[in-house]
Amino acid sequence: MESVAIFGVGLIGGSFALALRKAGFTGRITGVSSPTTISRAISLGVVDAGQPPAEAAAAADLIFLAQPISAILRTIAAIGGSVRESALVTDAGSTKASILSAAAEHMTGRIFIGGHPMAGKEARGLEAADADLFYNRVWALTPAKPEDEHRPQYQEFIQWLERIGAIPLVLDAAEHDRIVSLTSHLPQLVSTALAATLATRNPGTSGVHGPGLEDMTRLALSSFDIWEDILASNRDNVTSALEDYIATLEAIHKAVVTCTDAEIRQIFGQGGTFARSLRDDSPGGGG
Amino acid sequence: MESVAIFGVGLIGGSFALALRKAGFTGRITGVSSPTTISRAISLGVVDAGQPPAEAAAAADLIFLAQPISAILRTIAAIGGSVRESALVTDAGSTKASILSAAAEHMTGRIFIGGHPMAGKEARGLEAADADLFYNRVWALTPAKPEDEHRPQYQEFIQWLERIGAIPLVLDAAEHDRIVSLTSHLPQLVSTALAATLATRNPGTSGVHGPGLEDMTRLALSSFDIWEDILASNRDNVTSALEDYIATLEAIHKAVVTCTDAEIRQIFGQGGTFARSLRDDSPGGGG
Repeated sequence: MESVAIFGVGLIGGSFALALRKAGFTGRITGVSSPTTISRAISLGVVDAGQPPAEAAAAADLIFLAQPISAILRTIAAIGGSVRESALVTDAGSTKASILSAAAEHMTGRIFIGGHPMAGKEARGLEAADADLFYNRVWALTPAKPEDEHRPQYQEFIQWLERIGAIPLVLDAAEHDRIVSLTSHLPQLVSTALAATLATRNPGTSGVHGPGLEDMTRLALSSFDIWEDILASNRDNVTSALEDYIATLEAIHKAVVTCTDAEIRQIFGQGGTFARSLRDDSPGGGG
Repeated sequence: MESVAIFGVGLIGGSFALALRKAGFTGRITGVSSPTTISRAISLGVVDAGQPPAEAAAAADLIFLAQPISAILRTIAAIGGSVRESALVTDAGSTKASILSAAAEHMTGRIFIGGHPMAGKEARGLEAADADLFYNRVWALTPAKPEDEHRPQYQEFIQWLERIGAIPLVLDAAEHDRIVSLTSHLPQLVSTALAATLATRNPGTSGVHGPGLEDMTRLALSSFDIWEDILASNRDNVTSALEDYIATLEAIHKAVVTCTDAEIRQIFGQGGTFARSLRDDSPGGGG
């Protein structure tokens, strides 16, 4: 792997470039983004140069699509014919089923490996890019075709993921989308809904809250510009997760109204067990 | 103020003792707790000695009740007659209305100032005590009788709160309980319900989640042993907060199902504005 093209040089794309450099990658890294972003990325040492999409796609050994989901779908359709057959195309979209469908349609004869690094920050954009963003975090992989897992390009890509400290994990795309609807999309909506409820109810007097409220509203700082595509591409899983969550809250509500402490104690017990297991099992746990 | 009696030498009681010492308090600090806890507290330098409840109440200038709410209610009934008329009694219970009712009944002729330091940790117990726990955090105060605010004992207590770095804030007890139902009790139930839902739905594969899930399930580590009393003593406010929160989630659910992005964008906007204002305004914000 001697050349990498990064489509979308923001937090994820920029961090991947910095991580590759830190891990010893000495080949060429080009970026596909607006002229303003490209000149900032060059001056920050994140990419070597900017290129138009078709040119970047035709030249690279690894093509990394780190755009919002709707832009990834458009890029796959636009560059499919330009990608070399020896290249590996991957992405960082937060849902995988619609992206794999687009790849099956437009990337015939190419190696497409869906990807989702389980890393992030509230801060967005190139300025927040960080060579250690993926360290000790799972990087989910959803190959479009099982036989691609035996290709040397795939093996080399996995080795680079390991060198940057990520933990590659192969998943079925539908299973990935179901899992993240629970572990990422639901928590986002839970935090946003909490902050929006408090905004409406206006608890007033500033500072009358515990440190936990800051944790619980951190995700609510995220912009809908990113979440619009994520929710649209995972609608069935997200609605199902919301329904289960609302049912749990209604059980708590009923138990508070009827003073059924045994029921609430059980829910606290289940929740505590899950919260502890998350910290025991998670590669990035304990943080 | 030359002597302090701390009822309940756990995280809050122990931290208050350590904070007083750090701020230069040189008087006597006694603890009321189990013999095991008292001997640990003495060996850790948190208290000078242990005393039985009535004896501690009769001897102290400041009586600080840092027990669970139901124990505070029992202590108020038990020691009311023993407290000196020159003493100030305060507490650290998470709800205030029921505690002020008990004080009005059992502490006639005494100065009772309800209190609620807006500080905490998931870790409990004396071993987690920390002299800086209250630094830059609001300490809500709900005086039982408005005229008590002019007593010198009250002024001296406020000075000690300021010396330990806390931000004293006087509130009506009912208003306090309404506010914390939104800023503390609702976030706790939201976190517990999220963790319990994930426990039931079993997303499986470990590590497939963003860093946000750890924030969102930190409160779920809390034990129901503490929350049982809090919920029981603030039932109406908590059920109302839960109802508003469930309504917000149902609006999100409907908008996801019907693809009404404008509605979800508005909720993200409200939530983001609240989350940012929390960080701008909060004395302990930005953390």
